Amino acid sequence: RVDGSRLWSTLMETARFGATPAGGINRLTLSEEDRAVRDWFRDACEAAGLEVGTDALGTQFALRRGRDMSRKPVACGSHLDTQPTGGKFDGILGVLAGLEVMRSLNDAGIETEAPLLLVNWTNEEGSRFAPAMMASAAYAGEFTTEEILQKRDAKGVSVSEALESIGYQGGEPVGAREIGAFVELHIEQGPILEAEGRTIGVVEGGQGIAWFDGTVTGFESHAGTTPMPRRRDAMLGLAEFALAVERIALAHAPSAVATMGEAEIVSPSRNVVPGQIRFTLDVRDPASAVLDALEAALNEAAAEIGARRNLSLELTRIWRKEPVPFHPRLVAAVDGAAEGLGLSRRRIISGAGHDACNLAGLMPAAMIFVPCKDGVSHNESESATSADCAAGADVLLHTLLTLANA
Amino acid sequence: RVDGSRLWSTLMETARFGATPAGGINRLTLSEEDRAVRDWFRDACEAAGLEVGTDALGTQFALRRGRDMSRKPVACGSHLDTQPTGGKFDGILGVLAGLEVMRSLNDAGIETEAPLLLVNWTNEEGSRFAPAMMASAAYAGEFTTEEILQKRDAKGVSVSEALESIGYQGGEPVGAREIGAFVELHIEQGPILEAEGRTIGVVEGGQGIAWFDGTVTGFESHAGTTPMPRRRDAMLGLAEFALAVERIALAHAPSAVATMGEAEIVSPSRNVVPGQIRFTLDVRDPASAVLDALEAALNEAAAEIGARRNLSLELTRIWRKEPVPFHPRLVAAVDGAAEGLGLSRRRIISGAGHDACNLAGLMPAAMIFVPCKDGVSHNESESATSADCAAGADVLLHTLLTLANA
Ligand SMILES: NC(=O)NCCC(=O)O
Ligand SMILES: NC(=O)NCCC(=O)O
Repeated sequence: RVDGSRLWSTLMETARFGATPAGGINRLTLSEEDRAVRDWFRDACEAAGLEVGTDALGTQFALRRGRDMSRKPVACGSHLDTQPTGGKFDGILGVLAGLEVMRSLNDAGIETEAPLLLVNWTNEEGSRFAPAMMASAAYAGEFTTEEILQKRDAKGVSVSEALESIGYQGGEPVGAREIGAFVELHIEQGPILEAEGRTIGVVEGGQGIAWFDGTVTGFESHAGTTPMPRRRDAMLGLAEFALAVERIALAHAPSAVATMGEAEIVSPSRNVVPGQIRFTLDVRDPASAVLDALEAALNEAAAEIGARRNLSLELTRIWRKEPVPFHPRLVAAVDGAAEGLGLSRRRIISGAGHDACNLAGLMPAAMIFVPCKDGVSHNESESATSADCAAGADVLLHTLLTLANA
Repeated sequence: RVDGSRLWSTLMETARFGATPAGGINRLTLSEEDRAVRDWFRDACEAAGLEVGTDALGTQFALRRGRDMSRKPVACGSHLDTQPTGGKFDGILGVLAGLEVMRSLNDAGIETEAPLLLVNWTNEEGSRFAPAMMASAAYAGEFTTEEILQKRDAKGVSVSEALESIGYQGGEPVGAREIGAFVELHIEQGPILEAEGRTIGVVEGGQGIAWFDGTVTGFESHAGTTPMPRRRDAMLGLAEFALAVERIALAHAPSAVATMGEAEIVSPSRNVVPGQIRFTLDVRDPASAVLDALEAALNEAAAEIGARRNLSLELTRIWRKEPVPFHPRLVAAVDGAAEGLGLSRRRIISGAGHDACNLAGLMPAAMIFVPCKDGVSHNESESATSADCAAGADVLLHTLLTLANA
């Protein structure tokens, strides 16, 4: 078993990098706060005897040697970046539990057959640069390194510039690092485990995701002198579309979810009828066909609202991630590890995207979930118990041992 | 008659201060661009033999001496600040036509009985600092100078700091400058004169205005894992409220207008259900009782939507300007001047707020409107013809002569 209290104090120790007054973390990828936690992580891994490398997209790899170095390493990990109003567990638990596994193996003097590898993937959150999970996607060959380096944040800073400014553009080519299998521990970020009183979610796969950029264009005019029927008010188009997005998701209840997460008026002013608004959409369902149906309904709604209100309402899909099934052998290994530890568990589908979902196309991959309070995530109040974090790390430890010694 | 082509070239000459690629002007009050046009205005007034002073809120006064300096000056003017996507005429015409009147009187060697005064009021637009027409309101005693100096823009800069940074905090106490009557020339900013083919609007008064700040507060959560029925999505509350605002205005058609001009998600992120949004409302009607009814309906809608969606939806009224009737004697003087010049005209109510509306509580005041293309204002494409601008300036000239020589 891992040292649960050491894991907990490591979680609390690193929560200072980007800590917010409300008890959360604001540690956007490739920010100064991210640099600080990366430096800490590198030092902690080296102190645990791991060999640390960094690839051209800033992803950090920490290797623990095995008896048979001709075997590909069995990997674990997640991400240390957060949302602007993120919590202390999303992603971070998976990385620091991996570190705790390494420390526990050192304490017990255990050598594995295959080497073990701990990974901190760059920009999992997708909040600063879209899409989410971009470094693991490049690793898996879904994008070229060059494509990712050129993505820009809302201020126009590119991934390449951001990597350079924090000194984390590493020398390893993306995808060069060999990995035999990948297991990711994460908080559930949803309400199911807590509601059923179970400790472990044995994750069978991740749902499909589509991201859109949208623009509503009307005509700026004077708020005091433009009669209501003459207006081409972009805000009213946005409002109708936001409600259509909700209606369309509810028409595929309970599986589908859809969210307008960003919306920004171009040149806003109190006494000007808004002329243009840019927004984003996040649409998800576990079934690819439902995702198709959602996309079609959204496009139809945009066209209808635009035509009726004499606005142009444009949607561009900037990313689509198909639903991902995890590998049956790894799912069974997670299940077996939880059973061996006597932990209550259930099979579950991930509502969030994870780096493991990208790697699953390339190698056997799986995930372990632990409960979080009220199912809340992407919120500064995100919370999980020390006991659940430790239980998750124990399942991670035993799954890795099973895979590395098989 | 004034020199219409000199007026037009002066309009085009000053349009370079804050010129936008789309042919408009972005010259927010107390910005660097505003400083530049103020410097130009001071120099041009001095070159025309006027005595220029500045008050503690940056309002510029340019005096042309009369035969009887014991009489209070008859004033004209408007404002040189613009919206972020403003045009070349809103406010500017009133100031530069006043300058053209002074130049024409000089050319003709005409001395008036009462002195004449040309005024450039600070922050008429209200886009950077709320409320609109703030310097003329302080002049009229609706706010203290101290209250206005402490108003802050969205970046937290106060009026006092902004005045200081452009060097326009003048020595004259606000309200100290004596004015006997005020006449403001302005583009209509609405469609009526153009539609009826008339050149001059004889403005009888201004409609009532109420401004609100609002906040919708829900709960930030994960866009992929939070089931639709568990969400407390601030964006959906905003959307329903924006549509309610439209419905409420239309229920008092055709007189009422209502606009959600600004809306900003706090900490936006693509994959986060919005937790908090701040917005503004601009609500207008020529009748005070209708303004009351609109306010009541808006508060009721906010409460209903908030309760139904488990959101807090708060509205705070930050400004209310009652409907203003202009002075019958001055309205008649404007009408007589237009008649004398053989210009087609009609009585009209102003949909926009103007500095003349604030001064009307303190002294006889009136306004002259000229048509603008398609009734469009607060837009970079705002446009008026040289002939209409000259006609408006002629009416201004003859109205001022009538009042100053009476
Ligand atoms: N785990 C997680 O919250 N990832 C961010 C990507 C997503 O939006 O699902
Ligand atoms: N004239 C004008 O556009 N003034 C701005 C104040 C208002 O919104 O009416």
